[in-house]
Amino acid sequence: MAQHEVCHLKQKKLCLQHLLIIVVSYSTPSVATPPFNVSPLKQVPRFLGKFAGSTKPHSQIQQQAYLYETRYFEQRLDHFSFSEIPKFQQRYLISTEHWIGPQRLGPIFFYCGNEGDIVWFADNTGFVWEIAPEFGAMVVFPEHRYYGESMPYGSKDEAYKNATTLSYLTAEQALADFAVLITDLKKNMSAEDSPVVLFGGSYGGMLAAWMRLKYPHIAIGALAASAPILQFENIVPLEIFYDIVSNDFKRESSSCFSYIKQSWNELTSKGQTNDGLMQLTKTFHLCGELKSSEDLSDWLESAYSYLAMANYPYYAEFLMPLPGHPIREVCKRIDQCPEGTGVLERIYQGVNVYYNYTGQVSCFALDDDPHGMNGWNWQACTEMVMPMSSSQESSMFPAYSYNYSSFLEDCIKNFGVKPRPRWITTQFGGHNIDVVLKKFGSNIIFSGGLLDPWSGGSVLSNISESIVALVTEEGAHHLDLRASTSNDPCWLVKQRESEKQLIRGWISDYYENKKVIFNM
Amino acid sequence: MAQHEVCHLKQKKLCLQHLLIIVVSYSTPSVATPPFNVSPLKQVPRFLGKFAGSTKPHSQIQQQAYLYETRYFEQRLDHFSFSEIPKFQQRYLISTEHWIGPQRLGPIFFYCGNEGDIVWFADNTGFVWEIAPEFGAMVVFPEHRYYGESMPYGSKDEAYKNATTLSYLTAEQALADFAVLITDLKKNMSAEDSPVVLFGGSYGGMLAAWMRLKYPHIAIGALAASAPILQFENIVPLEIFYDIVSNDFKRESSSCFSYIKQSWNELTSKGQTNDGLMQLTKTFHLCGELKSSEDLSDWLESAYSYLAMANYPYYAEFLMPLPGHPIREVCKRIDQCPEGTGVLERIYQGVNVYYNYTGQVSCFALDDDPHGMNGWNWQACTEMVMPMSSSQESSMFPAYSYNYSSFLEDCIKNFGVKPRPRWITTQFGGHNIDVVLKKFGSNIIFSGGLLDPWSGGSVLSNISESIVALVTEEGAHHLDLRASTSNDPCWLVKQRESEKQLIRGWISDYYENKKVIFNM
Repeated sequence: MAQHEVCHLKQKKLCLQHLLIIVVSYSTPSVATPPFNVSPLKQVPRFLGKFAGSTKPHSQIQQQAYLYETRYFEQRLDHFSFSEIPKFQQRYLISTEHWIGPQRLGPIFFYCGNEGDIVWFADNTGFVWEIAPEFGAMVVFPEHRYYGESMPYGSKDEAYKNATTLSYLTAEQALADFAVLITDLKKNMSAEDSPVVLFGGSYGGMLAAWMRLKYPHIAIGALAASAPILQFENIVPLEIFYDIVSNDFKRESSSCFSYIKQSWNELTSKGQTNDGLMQLTKTFHLCGELKSSEDLSDWLESAYSYLAMANYPYYAEFLMPLPGHPIREVCKRIDQCPEGTGVLERIYQGVNVYYNYTGQVSCFALDDDPHGMNGWNWQACTEMVMPMSSSQESSMFPAYSYNYSSFLEDCIKNFGVKPRPRWITTQFGGHNIDVVLKKFGSNIIFSGGLLDPWSGGSVLSNISESIVALVTEEGAHHLDLRASTSNDPCWLVKQRESEKQLIRGWISDYYENKKVIFNM
Repeated sequence: MAQHEVCHLKQKKLCLQHLLIIVVSYSTPSVATPPFNVSPLKQVPRFLGKFAGSTKPHSQIQQQAYLYETRYFEQRLDHFSFSEIPKFQQRYLISTEHWIGPQRLGPIFFYCGNEGDIVWFADNTGFVWEIAPEFGAMVVFPEHRYYGESMPYGSKDEAYKNATTLSYLTAEQALADFAVLITDLKKNMSAEDSPVVLFGGSYGGMLAAWMRLKYPHIAIGALAASAPILQFENIVPLEIFYDIVSNDFKRESSSCFSYIKQSWNELTSKGQTNDGLMQLTKTFHLCGELKSSEDLSDWLESAYSYLAMANYPYYAEFLMPLPGHPIREVCKRIDQCPEGTGVLERIYQGVNVYYNYTGQVSCFALDDDPHGMNGWNWQACTEMVMPMSSSQESSMFPAYSYNYSSFLEDCIKNFGVKPRPRWITTQFGGHNIDVVLKKFGSNIIFSGGLLDPWSGGSVLSNISESIVALVTEEGAHHLDLRASTSNDPCWLVKQRESEKQLIRGWISDYYENKKVIFNM
């Protein structure tokens, strides 16, 4: 059968590449801290920070995509007390190239930097750069504190030293950074009356939405893309994230879904046999010998989740270089192996799409999930407590029931910090958001795509006339924020058009109100 | 002339009382810290904290006005970081006497405690207690951190030790205290769906308005009485506070206004003469010898400002026991002295209305303005930077131009802290509030009276359909929050009726929305 031949051919091709290419790792550099002994699947939600490490592998081989200036701004480390602690330098990227200036109240497009190097986010947020000219807008990409170069205490080593130095890594402090930076920028440019529009994706989208809600005097509106602001406590079902990932596979192929669902037990059994770990090491072409089958499970689970997030309709190099509809491709490879191919061999073929689509990897390092002391793990262990379970029935992942006590224990053990699982909803809300925001707030777009597992914790329907949801069935993790391509499907072009139209409406409303007040 | 006789008689009466009555001081206890060497008139706005000191002179002689339970709640000292610092016990007063309970979604009336002992505020906020029964509402009066019994570090001495221990005395932290307390209370009472309505007067009114804006998911609306949220930077003219005080006097009598305006020079000149301070000590019946005429000026300025705030239409014991229309009474005494009475003697007669209306004071202690390390002075030196000037032309006070540098210097000298004069507007807004809130937010009543000098920095006109101003021409400092009396003028009764009606609207809107969502 032709399908089997394809699978066979690909395997051959891979073998050849093993001989030619050096190991290229896209993962963040390992950190010399004790491993974060938490099962990463269930405990720490998969956000994007790891791809935005300061090593910037993509940027090394690419030209800088957009033109901007890099500047630094001195920030208080603690905005909410008057303690005397050292200030830090926040990096931000700025372009006034297309700005029509303060006299004409030229708008300011402000991306709420999230958990990583801001350069990476700027490179991957082409939408903002592309629409700035037609709006005559300034573009600002501020970096989130404790990420990239925006390190308190002078260096990452110092900033990440312990729970005390890390204690100011919170969303509220980051929002206050943004508020202070905008206020200062506007003042320095005599642009106090320029309207600010916020953008953000993923955690950055959460920040954008929260910023509009908390600082309406600073920004007139926010485009919050794939922002799971409801992924807290029990606001949405705990299984929703892994259910969505699973459904993304099932919709492509139910046999693919089944192979994956089967694979966990096989993997565990194999790991328990004599020589089993060595066999797994070989099957999965690992660079070093596998120490526990759990490490391999984590590595696979991670790939599936990221594949769901990056399940875009065309080739993209967002998280990894991936073909269009990458899950379709994964499932094709899993399904199309010759009859008699073992489940684990199939899984290996599938996961290659994620970890080695360009075929440049000769062996895999399994340090995919940085267990070390990274910023997002700290945030997940303090405020960003997003409980997740994996359902026995509907999920293709190993079944798992969220266990707060063990999570708490791990956070104390690893960071010396006690999470505050109810703080985010106390500070930003989330429960009954429809009732709360029906007559409160305005000018927020919650955009998203239903293929994205984070859509499960996002706002998916309009709350009011101007707090709206723009949801696409075929979209994945903030696809709308990416630069346009010639392969953009119609629904994506339309989604972006709607976004532009809404933003244009906010701005002209603002000008209108300004006029009325000025003429009074 | 009859008028002169009255004045004469009163003087006699006073003399008699001198013989009979011991000294009663209504001021806060003196603090063993270096005096706060800032001219209090221009530098630190006059708020109410001093009247709500923990000595509670009024409560000692009065019965507890309302029935409640006193409870304590453990709060984080810093909500916005994960530092390990000791927690503290927040006091709150609670009454569920008239609450219709969680099943019927009985509302919670929550007073945002301000800069003083919460018992005093509870005693002086009869409106909330009076309307609770008809709403079937629970009543909660939480105390503001660092006031009354809600002291971090175990005691006032420890909490007020230095800038480090004081550094968590901020409005943002206080609001977070409220948010956490409400969330916990509701959870413990299974009342998660009970609507919360906020109340507050003066700084407490600012907190109520800000709380509704920042925590719409916690409270459905706020009655912010006499809340000068615009008294920052240059949002309103810097002269407005003292202009309003001055106009309150001028509208009663232009000669009274002139006598007061004249008095400052006379006072200064007198102070510079041989024996002048001793003469002033006698004229003003001071208990101890006057050390500088400025102390006397401060004492007088203070009285005039508080008189304007407490310029109620009937006898009340709010700040001090005062007759109805106390400024009218002051001016009467100033004006009606026999021809030839010196300006300073007239001033003394007038100011007696404020400091000694009950006639129980034999001599005056001049520690009226607590220069020591009190909480409000700290707040004024950190966030609550309310710049004020006194106009040469329109004010009856000594002319003064706001001088930030000298203010800064004094704050550093006295508290070892540098103010952040732009922080409040960055955090809470204020500039262009009409534009900002026109389509953002809902359910806030800004109530106020134009006789109140704090009305100058308050919202005086409707911003949107549900962010409204209820302003009375004859009202003073949050008169509407006081208990009703048989002497209430019609406009006050109406104002309170409107407030109740609006609150009723918020609550039924909330129930309506709940129903719609439940039925979906």
